[in-house]
Amino acid sequence: MSMKISIIGAGSSYTPELFERLAQMRSQLPVTDITLMDIDSYRLGAVKAFCERFARHLGMDVRIGSTTDLDEAVSGSTFVNTQIRVGGNACRVNDEKIPLSMGLLGQETTGAGGFMKALRTIPAMLKIADSIEKNAPDAWMINYTNPTGIVSQAIHDNTQIKCAALCYGGVRAADRAAAALGVDAKDVQYDIFGLNHCNFAYNFRVRGRALTEEELYKVAENVSEVAVDLTSRLKAVPSGYTQYYYHRQKKVEALFAQNKTRGETVLELEKEIYADFLNSSFDQKPPSLKKRGGGGYAAVALSVMDAIYNNRDTWHVINVPNNGVFRFLPDSAVMETAVLVNANGLKPITVSMPPPKAVWGLVSMVKNYEMLTAEAAVTGDRDTAVLALTHHPLICDYDLASELFGKMLEANRAYLPQFK
Amino acid sequence: MSMKISIIGAGSSYTPELFERLAQMRSQLPVTDITLMDIDSYRLGAVKAFCERFARHLGMDVRIGSTTDLDEAVSGSTFVNTQIRVGGNACRVNDEKIPLSMGLLGQETTGAGGFMKALRTIPAMLKIADSIEKNAPDAWMINYTNPTGIVSQAIHDNTQIKCAALCYGGVRAADRAAAALGVDAKDVQYDIFGLNHCNFAYNFRVRGRALTEEELYKVAENVSEVAVDLTSRLKAVPSGYTQYYYHRQKKVEALFAQNKTRGETVLELEKEIYADFLNSSFDQKPPSLKKRGGGGYAAVALSVMDAIYNNRDTWHVINVPNNGVFRFLPDSAVMETAVLVNANGLKPITVSMPPPKAVWGLVSMVKNYEMLTAEAAVTGDRDTAVLALTHHPLICDYDLASELFGKMLEANRAYLPQFK
Amino acid sequence: MSMKISIIGAGSSYTPELFERLAQMRSQLPVTDITLMDIDSYRLGAVKAFCERFARHLGMDVRIGSTTDLDEAVSGSTFVNTQIRVGGNACRVNDEKIPLSMGLLGQETTGAGGFMKALRTIPAMLKIADSIEKNAPDAWMINYTNPTGIVSQAIHDNTQIKCAALCYGGVRAADRAAAALGVDAKDVQYDIFGLNHCNFAYNFRVRGRALTEEELYKVAENVSEVAVDLTSRLKAVPSGYTQYYYHRQKKVEALFAQNKTRGETVLELEKEIYADFLNSSFDQKPPSLKKRGGGGYAAVALSVMDAIYNNRDTWHVINVPNNGVFRFLPDSAVMETAVLVNANGLKPITVSMPPPKAVWGLVSMVKNYEMLTAEAAVTGDRDTAVLALTHHPLICDYDLASELFGKMLEANRAYLPQFK
Amino acid sequence: MSMKISIIGAGSSYTPELFERLAQMRSQLPVTDITLMDIDSYRLGAVKAFCERFARHLGMDVRIGSTTDLDEAVSGSTFVNTQIRVGGNACRVNDEKIPLSMGLLGQETTGAGGFMKALRTIPAMLKIADSIEKNAPDAWMINYTNPTGIVSQAIHDNTQIKCAALCYGGVRAADRAAAALGVDAKDVQYDIFGLNHCNFAYNFRVRGRALTEEELYKVAENVSEVAVDLTSRLKAVPSGYTQYYYHRQKKVEALFAQNKTRGETVLELEKEIYADFLNSSFDQKPPSLKKRGGGGYAAVALSVMDAIYNNRDTWHVINVPNNGVFRFLPDSAVMETAVLVNANGLKPITVSMPPPKAVWGLVSMVKNYEMLTAEAAVTGDRDTAVLALTHHPLICDYDLASELFGKMLEANRAYLPQFK
Repeated sequence: MSMKISIIGAGSSYTPELFERLAQMRSQLPVTDITLMDIDSYRLGAVKAFCERFARHLGMDVRIGSTTDLDEAVSGSTFVNTQIRVGGNACRVNDEKIPLSMGLLGQETTGAGGFMKALRTIPAMLKIADSIEKNAPDAWMINYTNPTGIVSQAIHDNTQIKCAALCYGGVRAADRAAAALGVDAKDVQYDIFGLNHCNFAYNFRVRGRALTEEELYKVAENVSEVAVDLTSRLKAVPSGYTQYYYHRQKKVEALFAQNKTRGETVLELEKEIYADFLNSSFDQKPPSLKKRGGGGYAAVALSVMDAIYNNRDTWHVINVPNNGVFRFLPDSAVMETAVLVNANGLKPITVSMPPPKAVWGLVSMVKNYEMLTAEAAVTGDRDTAVLALTHHPLICDYDLASELFGKMLEANRAYLPQFK
Repeated sequence: MSMKISIIGAGSSYTPELFERLAQMRSQLPVTDITLMDIDSYRLGAVKAFCERFARHLGMDVRIGSTTDLDEAVSGSTFVNTQIRVGGNACRVNDEKIPLSMGLLGQETTGAGGFMKALRTIPAMLKIADSIEKNAPDAWMINYTNPTGIVSQAIHDNTQIKCAALCYGGVRAADRAAAALGVDAKDVQYDIFGLNHCNFAYNFRVRGRALTEEELYKVAENVSEVAVDLTSRLKAVPSGYTQYYYHRQKKVEALFAQNKTRGETVLELEKEIYADFLNSSFDQKPPSLKKRGGGGYAAVALSVMDAIYNNRDTWHVINVPNNGVFRFLPDSAVMETAVLVNANGLKPITVSMPPPKAVWGLVSMVKNYEMLTAEAAVTGDRDTAVLALTHHPLICDYDLASELFGKMLEANRAYLPQFK
Repeated sequence: MSMKISIIGAGSSYTPELFERLAQMRSQLPVTDITLMDIDSYRLGAVKAFCERFARHLGMDVRIGSTTDLDEAVSGSTFVNTQIRVGGNACRVNDEKIPLSMGLLGQETTGAGGFMKALRTIPAMLKIADSIEKNAPDAWMINYTNPTGIVSQAIHDNTQIKCAALCYGGVRAADRAAAALGVDAKDVQYDIFGLNHCNFAYNFRVRGRALTEEELYKVAENVSEVAVDLTSRLKAVPSGYTQYYYHRQKKVEALFAQNKTRGETVLELEKEIYADFLNSSFDQKPPSLKKRGGGGYAAVALSVMDAIYNNRDTWHVINVPNNGVFRFLPDSAVMETAVLVNANGLKPITVSMPPPKAVWGLVSMVKNYEMLTAEAAVTGDRDTAVLALTHHPLICDYDLASELFGKMLEANRAYLPQFK
Repeated sequence: MSMKISIIGAGSSYTPELFERLAQMRSQLPVTDITLMDIDSYRLGAVKAFCERFARHLGMDVRIGSTTDLDEAVSGSTFVNTQIRVGGNACRVNDEKIPLSMGLLGQETTGAGGFMKALRTIPAMLKIADSIEKNAPDAWMINYTNPTGIVSQAIHDNTQIKCAALCYGGVRAADRAAAALGVDAKDVQYDIFGLNHCNFAYNFRVRGRALTEEELYKVAENVSEVAVDLTSRLKAVPSGYTQYYYHRQKKVEALFAQNKTRGETVLELEKEIYADFLNSSFDQKPPSLKKRGGGGYAAVALSVMDAIYNNRDTWHVINVPNNGVFRFLPDSAVMETAVLVNANGLKPITVSMPPPKAVWGLVSMVKNYEMLTAEAAVTGDRDTAVLALTHHPLICDYDLASELFGKMLEANRAYLPQFK
């Protein structure tokens, strides 16, 4: 029996990580075909060339195809993995620099950069969803395209496809707590509230036992991105990306002090990586790739695919519509929340205690911004776009939002035909 | 390492079934001690004598103790199994006959019988919960004492213990559908809404695939207690006990036509069973026990204990507080609903579509009755008790409710000290 | 400036009461035209003849028109008063007798009679609503057509017109309490929960002061339809029509004991009334009319029209969509609830304390039945119709519901073309 | 019959405005005694001296008393008007300057100034509430003490007294729209969502008729504090104080450019006013008072007192607990929302359409901050205080919040004994 997985945006340097994990999980997930799809033939060719060598090295028995045709890639797939970057890292440089020039954060998910990336990305993602509806209606979209929270909001608002929008950040708190406490991550449990890159894990338990004050403090010490005493006061482990809210001014100052933005660094690094991919002497991950960082999602993705494919009941943290779990957010609001995954899909589970008392307002404001952004990306309505940016807690200013939107729109004209 | 399980109400003829299942699951649940507790020494002795023989036959390596002291039984337990019947089947005969004499159903869970059984049972169950809080605060109560829905409402309203209130009825729809469709029950999934003995499984899927009209009709045909065309119209598989609502008049007529009530039949049968238990030639379940019927919960109970003890993520249907899953019922209302079970306990999961359009009112009315009954059992307030019966959809009459409560109270005087 | 009021179903013997009240309120509501519309020319002629004499006697300066054309009546109206009875009291006789023959209540709002009346009436009411949308989109429908709760559910679910669905029952509790306490009804305030003919007033205040226990008991004594001790236990004044739920068996027995149904009595009485209307010697309400009973709604209707027309803030109790006031009922469920009325329409107000603890289940079950009935009346779907009757707390039996629906459908064939 | 009104904080220069309005409304509100209370004897004496002359001039027939004893002032009152300023305008200068020195807004309600004012004020307000509970339990507190939203949150969370927390801002949208459209303000209606100084009026109607696009634009043009195109994009009239959110950077720059803070200006002006009050030649409001600005609340306050005292149904906008009207905010969250006022108190009314799509997140974040602030003011918990400031959308930075709280606490040490 054949089983096909397609990777959309396969020219990404993250693709080899997925192969590596597929090899490790081959007994649970008997994949026979992997189809790589990208619109950038150079990157697609480089990744394919390397992955063929890599798969051989890993002892995988799979057919590896490649195509620039979306429908061809999607047809027949059991899982469609999406990891696209519309405009590439060149656009990312703009996303980071324009806001910073106005004293604002341009981070590619949490900041104004994430806003612009969402506007570029959502139309492309809806095209992929459309192809799934037509060519593989039973397939699952496994998405790691950022900003995941806003992208999956748009997917759930506008399509009927099955979509698991993942991020390692959802289960990261278990790893942090396990490391702090010297226990197995599988035995760490918690309630979780919030959004992608703005989540809060709380009510920590080890096999059902509540932590002591001392243990909680140890966990707080193990969260490096946010001040220990803040984590401790929140009584919750925040996403590392909340540093952009909690240490906003310091981040702005640090970015001003840098020579290069993250986008510029990655652009340079990628030259090296793709050269290595094309170098036939490499059949394992080249050293350049290790410098890239990021990743970590392959393990998450494979565990979700395993749970679905093998109908294995599994607790997870995934971006899905709220559906009543948190009364103070709309039912349709996509949250990064705890779910039960199995062949029947993803179902949010209820929490045992209310979210930390200090953060429901922040999460609401970010979610309101995200829902407006998802809407603007589809309708191309400028009013909605400006209102979104105006109500982002890192901007919170109509004059700044209006000016910023004007500049970013101009810089991204080619990618935003929906804004007439 | 030792692991102790206690059985409260162990003099019940259902106890051997639990031993049988424990033997089958011994590799997952390494039980070293089983303590049998009952206030009826004769039945306790008979069950203990038989279970020792039976355990030997099953090759179990466990210490079997017995006691009439609750605290002794509870202390050190990992799981406290409760299966008590306050007043025994003698009281059950009254519970059935008094309502029937007024043309009303006395069924021991769904009808007025369940009301009276709840008033007798809840104080005893709260005493057990109290003993757990004092003597084994980390232990789980695994309850099959009926009426489970009302009993667990009282437990959750009045104590902090961990309690899994079970009934085979929660997962029965999977077995029915699997039999109808010729698939494995594990692959059948559904949303479920309602209460113990008043639940409705709907939105059936086989490994995520929605059923066809024909398949749904096949499932309806496989539900014997309720008319096929009703099941089909509801677009849901109702609990078998809903026959008392849906075929109320026919049930009343059938009961009038019977010579003996269910309680009288069981009373006679039990004489035979306990004699067999004491007969040392039996080391397997005697034929008399097979005539008893009921049961089936041991498999359910063991799968829940396995999920908790081994931190194994497992979908189940258990009676737990609603906690927001169904907006139109109070958060504290105990529902029989789908949960994720693991070492962290029981967490309700949200449903994918709203409950069948015809039944939310019925479920609300029954739940309102149940919550009033649970309250009256604790406070001994006659007004609350009469209001409960008045608003039961099988009674729905203040004059009948008042008369019925008077008669039942008189017949149960010895068991209801809380009603001054 | 002209101001037109139309009365649809003007052939009703209740029409003169409306004239009387319009005369009393002429300074607030300067009506210049009253158009009477009915499909029954005999009754329309009789009422018109009498009302012309009566208006002269009352000193009213209005033009009185009559027509059998709906659109003509509606056009130009500020208020469209609807008081139709599809099939007349002849159908009512069936509505009452068929259920009674099966031991069930056939009351024309609360019982199975109300179900059948709703199926006949809703299509006609939607035709009126349609005419308003086309011919007088700013007009208000003021409805007293029974069963008001189900009729207005259908109006709100299927049209956009402004509709105030009234019943004297909403403010009756103030009159009862005022009489019991010797205070002015305007000074009595309460929260109210429930449905038309199934409402519960509670949390009584006199000018903001909570009542004492003794005062509450006095109020209970003043509610004649339901046992004093039940009212007292409920801590709420129930609608008089709840006697059909609370004294169900006694009502069935009393109806069996009667020679004539209410419908038959009214049929006979009407012969006398219409003869009197045509008798030119009467220019005041004839004695036969006093025997008719009912009524009382004209005062309510006029106070609502006054509040709307003159933008006068007024507390009232009217049937409107719940809109979140009671969390455990759907937002779209039409409730009989407290509203603020003014030129901006009807807006439900929140309650100060939760509804009486014993009745939310009953109200939910009745509302579920009502919503199914409203749906069946529009779609003509037999499954929905049978499910509605099955889940009515006065029936609660699928076999009885199926049989009853069959019989009633046959008897009403001519009026139910929607049921193919 | 006597009727007493007390004014707590009567040394305020706003007191004469209240006298003026009481004189105008004397036929509806037959006040016989007005007791002035303040802890500042100089200001109290000056105001009393002037008000006696002013009352004579206005022809009022009232006894005017004064006291520095709270219980004496409260006893026997029908209405207790509270308008205190703990620490006076001297503290206000700090509230404004400290945040500004860090580039943050110190506005006395919306900004960090409001936070510090709330910490100083809430304990004093709870003392007044306590006196009402003991000395005049049926009395209504009519509060205009700022920050009204946070103060009334604390009152409702911690006491059982009847409290109407007012601000002219709630009904200001009607005046703005009426002026723009040339209609009577009484005929303008709207839904309103939000908090004191952060509210949004929308769904405008004139006597039930929805506005046209052109009319809406005219209304937007009439809102001076916020950009016309923003008001127009919001499809709502925002509170004037939202300029601090929407034009944040411009406001900061403007404040930096000023020589004096608002507090300093008022401090100087007050010297002049109190001299005039003591000048026996003034029996009408002196010209210095007109320069003071503010005010406008007396008309609002009197209309509320009239509605309560005379049981007159009146639509109003007042700060009250949400109580379910807006699902995404806690039931206990005090909102500035539309209510029905009469002798039975204040009851929120539901809205006809959901709030403007862009602002629910902002309102949630501000409300979360307010609830934390109200809690910190009572408990004196530093963690809660810092978390409050951290999550204010005008700060949104843990490092800034921590530093700011330290500085403000030091400057207000004498007024904050609760912070140990």
